[in-house]
Amino acid sequence: MASQNQENVGWFKGFIQKIMNVVISAAKDTKKLGKEDPRRIIHSFKVGLAITLVSLFYYFDFLYEGFGVSAMWAVMTVVVVFEFSVGATLGKGVNRAIATLLGGALGVGAHRLASFTGEKVECIMLGLSVFLIASMVTFIRFFPKLKARYDYGLLIFILTFCLISVSGVRDDEVLEMAHRRLSTILIGGLATVFVSIFICPIWAGKDLHNLTANNIEKLAIFLQGFGHEYFETTNDKNQENKASMDGYKTVLNSKGTEEALVNFAKWEPRHSKFRYRHPWDLYLKIGALTRECAYRIDALNGYLHSEMQTPMETRAKIQESCTKMSSECSYALKKLASGINTMTCSLPADAHILNAKAAAKKLKSSLKPGLWPETDLVDIIPVATVASLLIEIASCTVKIADSVHELASLSKFKSRDEASKDKNSKEKVTRTPSIESHSLSINIVE
Amino acid sequence: MASQNQENVGWFKGFIQKIMNVVISAAKDTKKLGKEDPRRIIHSFKVGLAITLVSLFYYFDFLYEGFGVSAMWAVMTVVVVFEFSVGATLGKGVNRAIATLLGGALGVGAHRLASFTGEKVECIMLGLSVFLIASMVTFIRFFPKLKARYDYGLLIFILTFCLISVSGVRDDEVLEMAHRRLSTILIGGLATVFVSIFICPIWAGKDLHNLTANNIEKLAIFLQGFGHEYFETTNDKNQENKASMDGYKTVLNSKGTEEALVNFAKWEPRHSKFRYRHPWDLYLKIGALTRECAYRIDALNGYLHSEMQTPMETRAKIQESCTKMSSECSYALKKLASGINTMTCSLPADAHILNAKAAAKKLKSSLKPGLWPETDLVDIIPVATVASLLIEIASCTVKIADSVHELASLSKFKSRDEASKDKNSKEKVTRTPSIESHSLSINIVE
Repeated sequence: MASQNQENVGWFKGFIQKIMNVVISAAKDTKKLGKEDPRRIIHSFKVGLAITLVSLFYYFDFLYEGFGVSAMWAVMTVVVVFEFSVGATLGKGVNRAIATLLGGALGVGAHRLASFTGEKVECIMLGLSVFLIASMVTFIRFFPKLKARYDYGLLIFILTFCLISVSGVRDDEVLEMAHRRLSTILIGGLATVFVSIFICPIWAGKDLHNLTANNIEKLAIFLQGFGHEYFETTNDKNQENKASMDGYKTVLNSKGTEEALVNFAKWEPRHSKFRYRHPWDLYLKIGALTRECAYRIDALNGYLHSEMQTPMETRAKIQESCTKMSSECSYALKKLASGINTMTCSLPADAHILNAKAAAKKLKSSLKPGLWPETDLVDIIPVATVASLLIEIASCTVKIADSVHELASLSKFKSRDEASKDKNSKEKVTRTPSIESHSLSINIVE
Repeated sequence: MASQNQENVGWFKGFIQKIMNVVISAAKDTKKLGKEDPRRIIHSFKVGLAITLVSLFYYFDFLYEGFGVSAMWAVMTVVVVFEFSVGATLGKGVNRAIATLLGGALGVGAHRLASFTGEKVECIMLGLSVFLIASMVTFIRFFPKLKARYDYGLLIFILTFCLISVSGVRDDEVLEMAHRRLSTILIGGLATVFVSIFICPIWAGKDLHNLTANNIEKLAIFLQGFGHEYFETTNDKNQENKASMDGYKTVLNSKGTEEALVNFAKWEPRHSKFRYRHPWDLYLKIGALTRECAYRIDALNGYLHSEMQTPMETRAKIQESCTKMSSECSYALKKLASGINTMTCSLPADAHILNAKAAAKKLKSSLKPGLWPETDLVDIIPVATVASLLIEIASCTVKIADSVHELASLSKFKSRDEASKDKNSKEKVTRTPSIESHSLSINIVE
């Protein structure tokens, strides 16, 4: 009896321990999520606030029967429309408002048309119209361009049309119902947009802008560390350094995030330094170039940890020019990233690109056959591949620089010295194509 | 007057012309979308059918007042829950049902608790509980694992909780309201799931399976054409051939699609040859390897159209082994793809991998320095890079083959000869590690 009691106590203790572990790990995850991006916590409270405001409106309306059941549409709108960024929220809100209006109008039309006929015909007509509209609009949702911007609106259009057209209430009541529903949805939508914009707003455009700069910076961090990692013989490689060098890997799969942010950013009004029609599509171009560069870096990374190593003495011959190229590209990318971050024109980046070009030329001359008399070709191949990857990365860097300059001139970045603003911006316009022509000549076989 | 009339007619004609152009291009797009995947048309009609069925239920219910206003939840559920694949539909449906149940229960609890207090305290308590629950659950939606599978459920939980807890109706009515709402949501959800599964079902699992096979096949198509494109001097390169070779580019950005499909597939019941707990996560592994291989192919593709070409006579020295490696990898990948497609074990792929390994050895021996006496090192570098990329692609192919074998044994693919089934599957188990060890030795510096 006593032993069974003890067993029970033991089981109970184990159970408590397990629950404690789950709770502790959940708490750790929560802390980590909040630390990663504190705006998540702010967003959660904002949603709570907006829902509470509208819920109380619904609660009091229920007591005094202003909008009746329709008041719940206000709550639904807030819950469904409130998204993380202002752009996403506005996009969903506008979609919902317009779709409700159009769907409601068409629904009232269908309802009125059907009511002129007999009861049996009415039922068939309504069923047929719902079937056709729902099928058609569902198919329209597959068009990629419409899907990106109006998917939610099309869904709500189907919903509103069906609810209004088949609601078996009398004709004049239908109009009133549609009116009540639309006004409560507007109340909900306006409350959402108000809280989203005026209390610690989270702008998708700013996120996109920072993401672009950060991605470029991640490439720079890898290239900065590369020369050291590849040419050093020491085995005590810094683990922390390695982790920060691996940061470029997130760039490889950033396409989806970028596209979503561009779609959201297009809905946003003027904020901080971004005007309403900021050239958002240009970020996609810069992102694609950044990813192209990241693919090359991924290949380069393979050689860092590869078994097929070139002997150190062979590597040493091209160490200087490779390290130079890698670090100059890294400086250029860093300058570009900080230029985007601070929204200033990044002229110094060009100097680094020219340095990288010079290093590429030097690399080319150091590959002359006379200089490698007794080396096995097999040993040269990996190091030669590394060199040619670096050259490709340099030409990617030039392309990224060109796109960033285009962005800078289109969105009127500050020139570095506000006093010589006009002069610089004129220089920029004439300079860009000359860089372009340089870019094509950074090439190992000229 | 007459000239103005003519002008008007001209303007009108131009206007009609413009509208016609828009209509024609829209019709072409529609046709293209439908041809690309005819299941889109079927899906649209299925949605139309389900919505019509439930709308008519709503319509008749309105006439006879069975569920009252709650009947509209059935329509809403169908519109919102019906997704393209069965998995996505089931996932959303289950999420919605469970979230409504839990949110409703908690809402009724909060409502009852608040009703014991005075009116003013009740209002404050309800507002506070809505604020806390909404904020908490919104934050929980940021957890990546929960977001992937239960995002919709968490949203509906907030919605139901708010609607029920703040509905100012009397206590017994709240219970009835919750009950009515839940049953109409179940009616809508069941209608959706029924139409989705029993009328031309579209399985996410099958899509994922085919996508994986197609992606591997796209790599094979590139490698098949590569030898010819790179080593032929003819300038009249086949444009059509080039287009099909560029197919691998979609593989580079397939990660998002794959992850979504895996999430949907996990909801699906047993269908055709896939059981309920099919090893779906393994497809992510195969997909990652396929993408890794595609990055290398992208680098290889750069050399096809690069300015930095090696002279033909230099290339010719390694033409045979490179073409051999490329085509053997291509055969192996094709066999693997068709093995996945038909769900049979693809033993013949191994033979091609061994051939590729032999070609790699030959390539290595042909790179001995004595054999390239008068060649400029600069000329060799591009061709050497191509060779080392091909070797990397071969080792990627081996890794893909290993993962596909793992998938085959876990999901019990048919062996090629059903008669010698047992013998083959035993062989397979012992063979896989030996391939693994081969894979590491396909290496240019042994």
